[in-house]
Amino acid sequence: MKKPVRKNAFYAQSGGVSAVINASACGVIETARKHSRQIGRLYAGRDGIVGALTEDLIDVYRESPAILRGLKYTPAGAFGSARFKLKGLEQNRAEYERLIEVFRAHDIGYFFYNGGNDSMDTALKVSQIGAAMGYPITCVGIPKTVDNDLPHTDCCPGFGSVAKYVAICTREAGLDVASMARTSTKVFVLEVMGRHAGWIAAAGGLAGRKPSEPPHIILFPEIAFDRDKFLAKVKQCVGDFGYCVVVVSEGAAYADGKFLADAGTKDAFGHTQLGGVGPLVANMVREVHGYKYHWAVADYLQRAARHIASRVDVDQAYAVGKAAVELAVKGVNAVMPTIIRKSTKPYRWEIGHIALGEVANKEKKLPPDYITADGFGITAACRRYLEPLAGGEAYPPYKDGLPAYVRIKGIAVRRKLKTDFPI
Amino acid sequence: MKKPVRKNAFYAQSGGVSAVINASACGVIETARKHSRQIGRLYAGRDGIVGALTEDLIDVYRESPAILRGLKYTPAGAFGSARFKLKGLEQNRAEYERLIEVFRAHDIGYFFYNGGNDSMDTALKVSQIGAAMGYPITCVGIPKTVDNDLPHTDCCPGFGSVAKYVAICTREAGLDVASMARTSTKVFVLEVMGRHAGWIAAAGGLAGRKPSEPPHIILFPEIAFDRDKFLAKVKQCVGDFGYCVVVVSEGAAYADGKFLADAGTKDAFGHTQLGGVGPLVANMVREVHGYKYHWAVADYLQRAARHIASRVDVDQAYAVGKAAVELAVKGVNAVMPTIIRKSTKPYRWEIGHIALGEVANKEKKLPPDYITADGFGITAACRRYLEPLAGGEAYPPYKDGLPAYVRIKGIAVRRKLKTDFPI
Repeated sequence: MKKPVRKNAFYAQSGGVSAVINASACGVIETARKHSRQIGRLYAGRDGIVGALTEDLIDVYRESPAILRGLKYTPAGAFGSARFKLKGLEQNRAEYERLIEVFRAHDIGYFFYNGGNDSMDTALKVSQIGAAMGYPITCVGIPKTVDNDLPHTDCCPGFGSVAKYVAICTREAGLDVASMARTSTKVFVLEVMGRHAGWIAAAGGLAGRKPSEPPHIILFPEIAFDRDKFLAKVKQCVGDFGYCVVVVSEGAAYADGKFLADAGTKDAFGHTQLGGVGPLVANMVREVHGYKYHWAVADYLQRAARHIASRVDVDQAYAVGKAAVELAVKGVNAVMPTIIRKSTKPYRWEIGHIALGEVANKEKKLPPDYITADGFGITAACRRYLEPLAGGEAYPPYKDGLPAYVRIKGIAVRRKLKTDFPI
Repeated sequence: MKKPVRKNAFYAQSGGVSAVINASACGVIETARKHSRQIGRLYAGRDGIVGALTEDLIDVYRESPAILRGLKYTPAGAFGSARFKLKGLEQNRAEYERLIEVFRAHDIGYFFYNGGNDSMDTALKVSQIGAAMGYPITCVGIPKTVDNDLPHTDCCPGFGSVAKYVAICTREAGLDVASMARTSTKVFVLEVMGRHAGWIAAAGGLAGRKPSEPPHIILFPEIAFDRDKFLAKVKQCVGDFGYCVVVVSEGAAYADGKFLADAGTKDAFGHTQLGGVGPLVANMVREVHGYKYHWAVADYLQRAARHIASRVDVDQAYAVGKAAVELAVKGVNAVMPTIIRKSTKPYRWEIGHIALGEVANKEKKLPPDYITADGFGITAACRRYLEPLAGGEAYPPYKDGLPAYVRIKGIAVRRKLKTDFPI
């Protein structure tokens, strides 16, 4: 039997982090170890792809086994992630060439990129330029996005835990408001993430099963915001139930596509930076109805909430990391592992894969039949889809009352190139 | 032996609810059951004291045993709470007389009032007017306030769970920001509760042990806000650590006592309704330094977060409920059970009690030696005090991925009075 060519591997985290992206890293690491005939060293980009461009690589195998195991229960990006979108090949070929230069210098033959739609596009381009430059590299994307908006996969690791978090927050805050509504707050607004797709907002809907139970109103990005209809519904809820709990997506927008809360700033990807739709909506209610209100903005708390991660989500995050390595060592290139739902009750799933070109830069929105006719709630079909993803608990270990999350040492690989690359 | 006089008991929840106030209710209920020679029926005020004034009493013993046990892990006020402050005896004697009228009609001889400083004042007045009107009633306050600002007790049930929540959120969001700071958010602001006392904000300090670990800055109500000093510290943190995590109390105020974020509205107690200091502080940073920022406002999420309650807090909440009944049946009147710290390492505590007059309307602020010299952090003494209160986990049971919190049936006791009492 021919001895396989042994190459080093590169792993990077990309875009907004999640409660379980490190579980994917753990899946990559533990599986790469098992394929030591094909994969020599495993390097992680410090701060994601930026680490590759600047030749700042972390020597993953020099971390202690306890820390590597701890990644499975540690939120956020342990190796550092980046909001750094590589431009198109034509616009900035130099960046791709630099990547190949660094990979060549460190004998890297595997590229694992853990991110969302934008990142799958980058992974695809790296595979293309590598081939074009005579340095073929096996590129496998690893899905990660709390927004759950990647196509061709039943769900995205990171989403199930946010779904669980948002559903729990809605249930808990709902009980709080219910218990005091007679003499105090009548309207509570929870702002959640989800720039263009309402998956996270929809998850709030898991909190209640009857019309009387919170949330009474969900504002989706998929449904054009109608101020009068919204205000009428709030009034009806306060009349019928004594209070009203609203879950609003940061991506809630008017019919013309303008976000309710457009902060006017843009991030590195050119996306508008949002925030503040929660207080905005709450104020709207007070101005018209005069109800006492409270609002919460979960922001990073929702995507970092590893303390209440979904067990299913953790398992799937690990599984896609593991699958990425298994695909790569088999020589499958330019793909992304996917999650395939085999059955809903009981919930069963398996791992498949799809070509990167099929997922790059595409967004999966909430299907119309997941939203109730009035546009303010989720349907039974949506609940059936969402519920298993938030299933099971996967508590981290605790020390002195707090989760004992790990931090890597982050030992750098010795640089081999003489050139710097300004970011 | 003389047979004790058997009387019914009244229990009410008052003011802002917490993750563990129902655990206190559970302690009252299970202990009252054991003293059936002295306590006949147990009635709860629907929506707190409002239920007593309107003769809307819940027949607690008609709830199923499973629901009553479930109170121990259910957040918020299961019987309904109220922001309804009884005025002084001279200003509104009618309210107190109505209470006594309702108590007399239902043969109520025990008054258990579960709340904060204001509520202890109410409990004291009820005991006084009862005696003055020839209807003596044994009044015992049960401490509850997430603000931890009651004097003469080591801590207040409700606080330990918020402390744990805020510390965990700070640690989790801190990891999130750290992992992306190089190319994305540099400053993260978490707004927490605590109108006049910085206990909750201080708990954020448990998240880190070194100056490099979040939170890098805590803004306490006890320390006059100095804009320039704050902005300089933010800049220093971003320079030294690459990012800066700020925990700001809703009660943060300027030297003249004006809150940073004064929404201009007042609640039923005449307190200014706050909210929005998080975004305000974040904007301040951006305007001067231009850093990309994010902010979260935990609002009710923090005090309803039973999913991550402190085990110590749950135990103490139950214990003060239990002690209240035990004191009452011994005839001890106009007192509040307290928590006495016997040792910190290992943490040991026991229950004592104090006269209501000693705690009514008094506020315990963070002592100066709990705040670091620069005014932005907690001292080792503060950490020693806080850490045990957030200790241990007390997870609720789950069903379909969500906590299986209970809801009472709330069967009303048949009214005996012909008169209504407008609220």
